[in-house]
Amino acid sequence: MSLTVKFEKLLAGRSELFRASEVRELLKVTEGGDVISLAGGYPDPRVFPKDDLAEIAKEVISDEASRALQYSPTAGVTEFREELKKFMRRRGVTVRSDDDIIVTTGSQQALDLVARTFVEKDDEIIVELPTYLAALNAFRLSKPGMTAIPLDESGMRTDILESEIKRLKWLGREIKFIYTIPVAHNPTGITMSLERKKELLEIASKYDLVIIEDDPYSYFVYDDGVDITPIKTLDKEGRVVYMSTFSKILAPGLRIGWVLGNEYVTNVLERAKQTADLHTSTLTQIIAMEALRRGVVDKTIDKARQIYRVKRDAMLEALKKYMVEEAWWPNPVGGFFVMVFLPSYDIDTKKMLPEALKKGVAYVPGASFFANGMGWNTMRLNFSYPSPEQIDEGVKRLAGLIQEKLTGEKVRITPISFFKSGGMF
Amino acid sequence: MSLTVKFEKLLAGRSELFRASEVRELLKVTEGGDVISLAGGYPDPRVFPKDDLAEIAKEVISDEASRALQYSPTAGVTEFREELKKFMRRRGVTVRSDDDIIVTTGSQQALDLVARTFVEKDDEIIVELPTYLAALNAFRLSKPGMTAIPLDESGMRTDILESEIKRLKWLGREIKFIYTIPVAHNPTGITMSLERKKELLEIASKYDLVIIEDDPYSYFVYDDGVDITPIKTLDKEGRVVYMSTFSKILAPGLRIGWVLGNEYVTNVLERAKQTADLHTSTLTQIIAMEALRRGVVDKTIDKARQIYRVKRDAMLEALKKYMVEEAWWPNPVGGFFVMVFLPSYDIDTKKMLPEALKKGVAYVPGASFFANGMGWNTMRLNFSYPSPEQIDEGVKRLAGLIQEKLTGEKVRITPISFFKSGGMF
Repeated sequence: MSLTVKFEKLLAGRSELFRASEVRELLKVTEGGDVISLAGGYPDPRVFPKDDLAEIAKEVISDEASRALQYSPTAGVTEFREELKKFMRRRGVTVRSDDDIIVTTGSQQALDLVARTFVEKDDEIIVELPTYLAALNAFRLSKPGMTAIPLDESGMRTDILESEIKRLKWLGREIKFIYTIPVAHNPTGITMSLERKKELLEIASKYDLVIIEDDPYSYFVYDDGVDITPIKTLDKEGRVVYMSTFSKILAPGLRIGWVLGNEYVTNVLERAKQTADLHTSTLTQIIAMEALRRGVVDKTIDKARQIYRVKRDAMLEALKKYMVEEAWWPNPVGGFFVMVFLPSYDIDTKKMLPEALKKGVAYVPGASFFANGMGWNTMRLNFSYPSPEQIDEGVKRLAGLIQEKLTGEKVRITPISFFKSGGMF
Repeated sequence: MSLTVKFEKLLAGRSELFRASEVRELLKVTEGGDVISLAGGYPDPRVFPKDDLAEIAKEVISDEASRALQYSPTAGVTEFREELKKFMRRRGVTVRSDDDIIVTTGSQQALDLVARTFVEKDDEIIVELPTYLAALNAFRLSKPGMTAIPLDESGMRTDILESEIKRLKWLGREIKFIYTIPVAHNPTGITMSLERKKELLEIASKYDLVIIEDDPYSYFVYDDGVDITPIKTLDKEGRVVYMSTFSKILAPGLRIGWVLGNEYVTNVLERAKQTADLHTSTLTQIIAMEALRRGVVDKTIDKARQIYRVKRDAMLEALKKYMVEEAWWPNPVGGFFVMVFLPSYDIDTKKMLPEALKKGVAYVPGASFFANGMGWNTMRLNFSYPSPEQIDEGVKRLAGLIQEKLTGEKVRITPISFFKSGGMF
């Protein structure tokens, strides 16, 4: 359609950064159809403590309307921030005397504020390879250079990290932070070993770098013996900025996340947030605060972990049963996802998506999680939302399609080839 | 305090843009004390329909938890957007066939998204003189050039607007939009005449410019015979992007605003919002939707208008009774504020604020509303939150202080000197 007003021209400068994602548009169209979605990252609604929340919402509006419905401080409702500090300590996350907490409109806003305050055009940031696509999208708006460090099954390859830092220093780049999802990583489900976390901190200390620790999933680790110590807790120098969210442990519709870190940082984030949305909904903050106080959050975490473990197992079983032999996936000890690596570079999962949708199954093509322009033979599969039956059927449909496509050169993808530095990705 | 980690250096690039506002810090400290605040823009909590909202919140969580507590589309809950379109039409705001609506986390986010999508460094934008300070704060983050057009009692001076546009064109500047609050303007309470609105549209059409129409206050016009036709409704070309908010007509704690405009624009805003906070709280959107459906919003508007009219009258009476004779203020036909112009340039209201706080009264120094670095002899007074008694006492304290300060040169501030182009400001 041609426009009377030249909006295209007026918005042109930003159009590349704000262009529509083809994948997203494709997935949008299929919503609500007969398609089994392994694409999103939605919690199972059975997990929502709806009776508790209905009661809490009614109470806080009836009893304290003049607070719950009014404007509130940009950093968050004061008592809620205190409650969050207690929650952090209960979860084993160290809160230092020079730390503070700022509430954000979901952890997406935390990522956006971190990007807007730390990063200027031509600064450098370090991310994991692969990493959460919405973090990449938030960061790239500040037009930084981006260096991606491969993972292995113990998490970020700290040896590669150090050699990359040396290279960046040699180039004269200003490194603003290292972004990591150490526990139950999105999209791979990998968890960083204690040793790696310590190495990461040593390197950060040696080169005086900030670590942004994103932790939405440590509440959902399904296997025993997995170390989930936060990097924040191991940090003796206050260089870790930690963030988490209520989206998986209570309800995403409340849009509540938070950032815990040095008060110098939270103060700057607060001023950026003032311009971004003034403050997060007072009502949903007070609902979340009451849910913490009444033990609803802890109860929800326990219930959810059980439900998601069953689904994780269902997905691993379905993959084992149906998926082509040469495909490979890291073992997801926690979180919501499995990332599958397909054994042929002839298969581009983004190009394959429309065919998969026709077969009645959706996934997220993996390339968007790779900051180095690769990963086109990977896909992220979600198990938190679909039922075990849907997971079985969805994986079956997907595996059938992949089998059909596998006519070209096959490569046996193994942890060794996956993790080889400068190798396959 | 010295930091172990060099956060100052890492955040230095943005520190100027995200520096703490002295005024804000001052006003923060005095919260909850014996000080009468004429500073904020808070609704009177008596206006909140708390029983209705408590009931609605309980119902929507109990009956539709799997929707109300879940993630929802970035542009807003679909049915809510439809309900908003109906509300807009009911309010006399034209919704074109090529228009769409996007829900935002308060209108602050609408301002932020507009800035982030339309404006790049060195673009030019046009604002009113004075104008809403949080809009200026949102816009400046994109580092634009900013041209400010004086108001008179009929609104934006369109003659000055056109001559400024010609000058900017001559300079080769790219003008991205004209930002206006035409009805019950913040901070002055002035409303643009129908004639001026038409002239503004003619000029926008002639030079092919976009108008951003910010409308939080047209619900609260207290005097008869005031034309409140939205510019959006007069626009035959689709060049007006209209925004409003539930903060004053239901409850600010819900954090719900919206933008109505050409779908090309709302699509780009939607993609920017995806990175900013993924979506606005599903729960508060659904609460607002039900409040619209059940007539709670219309009822709240009627009730609030009556309450605020009494308070507006109380403030005008107090000003007449106590304020120094040579001071001047435009007549606020609507909205939440009166802007007072003091008759001496020796009085800097920002410097005077600590003294006022000591005397037990707070206000917002006017300079922050002036994009041309002036206005230091002005102050914005709020009447929506304090009681009529507090308004009387607050203005009395303030007038007393100003009388004490008025030892130097006095200037009789009049509409004529105020509105003289390139004159007193």
